[in-house]
Amino acid sequence: MTDVPEAARRIRSGDPRALARAISRIDDGDPAVIEVLKALHADTGRAHVVGVTGPPGSGKSTLVDKFVREYRERGLTVGVLAVDPSSPFTGGAILGDRIRMQSHALDEGVYIRSLATRGHLGGLSGAVMEAARVLDAAGFDRVLIETVGVGQSEVDIVRLADTVVLVSVPGLGDDIQVLKAGIMEIGDVFVVNKADRDGADRVVREIRSMLETALVNGASPRALSGTGAADRGGHHIAFAAREAVSSHGYGDAHGLPPVLKTTAETGEGVGPVVDSVEAHRAALAETGLLRERRLRNVGYELRGALGNRLLARLGTPDAVSRLDRLAEDVVEKRRDVYEAVDVLFEELC
Amino acid sequence: MTDVPEAARRIRSGDPRALARAISRIDDGDPAVIEVLKALHADTGRAHVVGVTGPPGSGKSTLVDKFVREYRERGLTVGVLAVDPSSPFTGGAILGDRIRMQSHALDEGVYIRSLATRGHLGGLSGAVMEAARVLDAAGFDRVLIETVGVGQSEVDIVRLADTVVLVSVPGLGDDIQVLKAGIMEIGDVFVVNKADRDGADRVVREIRSMLETALVNGASPRALSGTGAADRGGHHIAFAAREAVSSHGYGDAHGLPPVLKTTAETGEGVGPVVDSVEAHRAALAETGLLRERRLRNVGYELRGALGNRLLARLGTPDAVSRLDRLAEDVVEKRRDVYEAVDVLFEELC
Repeated sequence: MTDVPEAARRIRSGDPRALARAISRIDDGDPAVIEVLKALHADTGRAHVVGVTGPPGSGKSTLVDKFVREYRERGLTVGVLAVDPSSPFTGGAILGDRIRMQSHALDEGVYIRSLATRGHLGGLSGAVMEAARVLDAAGFDRVLIETVGVGQSEVDIVRLADTVVLVSVPGLGDDIQVLKAGIMEIGDVFVVNKADRDGADRVVREIRSMLETALVNGASPRALSGTGAADRGGHHIAFAAREAVSSHGYGDAHGLPPVLKTTAETGEGVGPVVDSVEAHRAALAETGLLRERRLRNVGYELRGALGNRLLARLGTPDAVSRLDRLAEDVVEKRRDVYEAVDVLFEELC
Repeated sequence: MTDVPEAARRIRSGDPRALARAISRIDDGDPAVIEVLKALHADTGRAHVVGVTGPPGSGKSTLVDKFVREYRERGLTVGVLAVDPSSPFTGGAILGDRIRMQSHALDEGVYIRSLATRGHLGGLSGAVMEAARVLDAAGFDRVLIETVGVGQSEVDIVRLADTVVLVSVPGLGDDIQVLKAGIMEIGDVFVVNKADRDGADRVVREIRSMLETALVNGASPRALSGTGAADRGGHHIAFAAREAVSSHGYGDAHGLPPVLKTTAETGEGVGPVVDSVEAHRAALAETGLLRERRLRNVGYELRGALGNRLLARLGTPDAVSRLDRLAEDVVEKRRDVYEAVDVLFEELC
């Protein structure tokens, strides 16, 4: 049994053991933690949530560590969630946390934690959203969410962060270039890390050029039409918002977001990135776009949670065997998938 | 208006323009294509579906092209779906298709197509599953699904492929090593590409060692318990299945799957990889595990589609404004997320 008010009180006070416990329970998909999260809801919404994402090998972990130091020097407290796609079997996350925490071991203003999302019904984004709220309620000024990933996870991070830092790196080959084109719209601050490597300036130029193209194409009505409009529209809004905030000390006069070089190993260039994140934060707040972005993010969360609520009904033994029988019908070609879903939906709703 | 029987007939005959049209409609999320898919259902289930996945920069596209050649030399026809995470704005997929198709331009036994999943309500995996069925119904002997991705997309591919080829590459840094640990369980055939690079043998050894560890840990009951059991169990079954098929000419005597080196550029090592995929296919069929794997995959699909069916109800103007008001309640702290979902679920179900 959880003593909900006591757990919430300890989280609010920033007790690292209470934070660790709550986040582990989120990670494991323990439904009892929801009562604690409900109790904390009134204390959320104060932290600025910064997503840091980019391809593997781009040095995000080192960069995030330097962001933490920079924020600490500015007198702000920082919670870090490192989303670790480790499997349910190997669970390498915990060791990594211990190593990373060592450099901030005596600093109560820093909390670093990996999430492997072993059991959360809402998957990665559901668990990260809840864990970020725990750190928010614990009073951290900034919550950094670091995702190792390419593809869907970058799209997801846009749904929970107030500001997105997109990290690139020179020399990762053509695949990466293609990916960059695809995820360009989600960044608010662009970083080319490992800037001491050959080709860093070329990557900066490429990103600028892609951003200019995206700025032109971003106005396309396609992004707001069709079945996927609700989903895709988010990118569009993010991009439009960027233009609106560019007159508030963030980005350049043409609405282009900053593209900055860093060498995370030495810390070079980290200060200006944090400056840009803070400028973006201030601009979002001044223009009222922070609230709009959060409304959109909560909208995504509600949609996701709604689907999960329905799936939870599939957890009963009766529903499981019904689903199994319908899957058999499909494989044996007695029904097609669409008919099977109709049957299941009628029975469960 | 679609002439459904005519569209289905042309797809069954393998008409490339009919395939292109159907897959574009799937990609765009056009609901009318469902009638065509229903009409094709009885003609599916014959192709062996091979997922090819791994980190960006691992040379998957070149490798897949070599797989296509190898299969063609063996007298088998091949459909390829390249899952392209390009954004809805930039849409670089089409150009890539044209370049890739050129080397097989006069060969009717090959069809290559990118999917950008611009509008499909079921996201990437829903669209890929449907597009794979189209190629299956068109009579291709093998359907190769190539995903550029790290993280969730590898987990998803397990839900639609009969055999999963996991591609690694030397020298991609520590992030990749971490990722490998996490996605190890999903591969049936492991490939270390760019084997002419330094460190290829070390990567082979590391993968073998991780597989041995996973084989031991894989039996943990954790994988089959907890909220996420239904999801996670799939990996467990995949892993257990691998042991069961190892006595049927696939993998080694200890249940370890093959780990093979390739140099996709020259084609070196591609033959043995295709041999292993085919051995895995034969072993799955002989042991009855092919049907079990497909039942599991359809089960995942039904779960996903069920959630989407509910989300589709959110598409009406009334539901949208209701969702918006509830998101506002959450941001303004009048309700917590869980309460908002309860309200929404009651209203929609």
